[in-house]
Amino acid sequence: MSNKAAVLVAGSWGTALASVLADKEMDVAIWTRNEAQRDEINHHHRNERFLPGVDLSSRIAATCDMGEAVRGAKAVIVVAPSSAVREVARSLKPYWHEEMTVVHATKGFETESLKRISTVISEELGCEEGRIVVLSGPSHAEEVVKRCPTTVVVASLDDEQASLTQDLFMNSYFRVYTNRDMIGVELAGALKNIIAFGAGMSDGLGYGDNAKAALLTRGLAEITRIGVEMGANPLTFAGLAGIGDLVVTATSQHSRNWRAGYMLGEGKPLETVLSSMGMVVEGIRTTKAAHTISEKYKVQMPIANQIYSVLFEGREPKTAVEALMGRDRKTEMEVISQETWEQWHT
Amino acid sequence: MSNKAAVLVAGSWGTALASVLADKEMDVAIWTRNEAQRDEINHHHRNERFLPGVDLSSRIAATCDMGEAVRGAKAVIVVAPSSAVREVARSLKPYWHEEMTVVHATKGFETESLKRISTVISEELGCEEGRIVVLSGPSHAEEVVKRCPTTVVVASLDDEQASLTQDLFMNSYFRVYTNRDMIGVELAGALKNIIAFGAGMSDGLGYGDNAKAALLTRGLAEITRIGVEMGANPLTFAGLAGIGDLVVTATSQHSRNWRAGYMLGEGKPLETVLSSMGMVVEGIRTTKAAHTISEKYKVQMPIANQIYSVLFEGREPKTAVEALMGRDRKTEMEVISQETWEQWHT
Repeated sequence: MSNKAAVLVAGSWGTALASVLADKEMDVAIWTRNEAQRDEINHHHRNERFLPGVDLSSRIAATCDMGEAVRGAKAVIVVAPSSAVREVARSLKPYWHEEMTVVHATKGFETESLKRISTVISEELGCEEGRIVVLSGPSHAEEVVKRCPTTVVVASLDDEQASLTQDLFMNSYFRVYTNRDMIGVELAGALKNIIAFGAGMSDGLGYGDNAKAALLTRGLAEITRIGVEMGANPLTFAGLAGIGDLVVTATSQHSRNWRAGYMLGEGKPLETVLSSMGMVVEGIRTTKAAHTISEKYKVQMPIANQIYSVLFEGREPKTAVEALMGRDRKTEMEVISQETWEQWHT
Repeated sequence: MSNKAAVLVAGSWGTALASVLADKEMDVAIWTRNEAQRDEINHHHRNERFLPGVDLSSRIAATCDMGEAVRGAKAVIVVAPSSAVREVARSLKPYWHEEMTVVHATKGFETESLKRISTVISEELGCEEGRIVVLSGPSHAEEVVKRCPTTVVVASLDDEQASLTQDLFMNSYFRVYTNRDMIGVELAGALKNIIAFGAGMSDGLGYGDNAKAALLTRGLAEITRIGVEMGANPLTFAGLAGIGDLVVTATSQHSRNWRAGYMLGEGKPLETVLSSMGMVVEGIRTTKAAHTISEKYKVQMPIANQIYSVLFEGREPKTAVEALMGRDRKTEMEVISQETWEQWHT
């Protein structure tokens, strides 16, 4: 069996996953389009733009040649921004074969089509969606490269592929759980970025921990509701890819989504926020997608819709958060239907 | 109808709830055994030990006379430490009558008996447990007195009592939801302190946000599991009293439970931690209770049991957290039985 894995592309999370694989004594090829980045990784074992100050393993080699990257690899890890996944998968296609495990760790939707990332990849590779593996969970790249204890979940409809992926990554500091609810894991990872963005906005407004906790709780209920409509198991949202990732994204300065929301809440204009980030803020794209999805599935998403108003309709963050606090008096329970439950638990 | 409410006793949360009621133009009597504290509240409108620097409303008056405190009150709010609740309820008994709403906001168990707080109060008052109202949720007292947006849940088997309590407290910054699962709200509020304590320990050890998020997620699953065995609705643990309160308790320096765990994680001896807190750390008592409960109900509580070892058996925090990370490879789902679900959703 080959001892090689390929990672496409060389962002912070891709580079961190490459480091985990290198720690398992794999030879790792990272594919990037950027020649300067390739040379930096190969000659200096650094990826300064995405993981400043981190020394990378000499087992990690970068290349701009897709064929060179994936040939002989037993697994390919796709970690491109959601907007680039289709093109990356298309470039992978000529080299892909049935024995090659495909894992993706991109949290978002394809913007125009609203397709999940596993759908996009399987369409381009011409394989069953169910054999793609999604990797998600509460995992800041900055902590993973320092070998801080981290847990993630890998999900696939194909148990063998999920199990191969669990074995591929699992080590003493990187703990991998499996889950068969691929749709739920994918949706939770994408949708939670909206709520993290909202939590940042609330913090930027100076609203405090009580308000943020309320937003996270109601936000979790909201993304669970839409997830279930789209075919997910509600319990997945109570797991690592849901509440786990939401907590880490919404309460940490490492998070781009939280930080972008925070700056907006402080009163900075959207253009300033975006230009200062220097990296993709998936939560902004996902908010647009969720707005369309909530209309399509006729599911109420009050938090996502208020954030949409702030991002795309010029609403004041303060007005948006107050609108969320000022709704009618209610009971807490939003019962998931018996039918949905039985679908998952018989 | 009377415009008076009584709060027993004058800790930080009791005083904050008194402030919410005063903002609704109620006359609020706070009962305390401490004469100096009584005079400080009455003459200086301050409660410096528990809420330093906060000016209290002149509608709040303190007294050491239980009869004076509760006579004519339409509602009594019990916010004593779990160890003092029985005695406070016993002192209330001579003045209590059926028209008086009883709300409690104490998060814990009676230590020896392991009874829930509503059980203890109803036993002493000689009333149905179901007419007691429990108030819980993500709500730092320090933020409530600053009128930061806050949401809580009130639960009772008696819809009228729950609804009266919702009306009593609800205002523009303090949003009150109702829930009929009194047992779940009470258990979630108590048990989450154990997990918050563990999160503090992980932070004190320098393990990072990924590890903490894993601990919170697995901890939520653990306290849900024991809650369901004890008669709670699992969905309550996904709500404000569960995940909401857990997030706020585990990610904020305001939290005594988090702070106590943090100091232990840093390597401070338990005696030093306890003496430096100056206030009750309910999570420590609750860990003892949970240890006994998990044996009684034969439910696995790995996190609570590791924390128990640290607190009461001299185990090193590092060894305890590593034991939690080093368990077998697993699937994520711990399915709640169909039977449990049907009990709640038909």
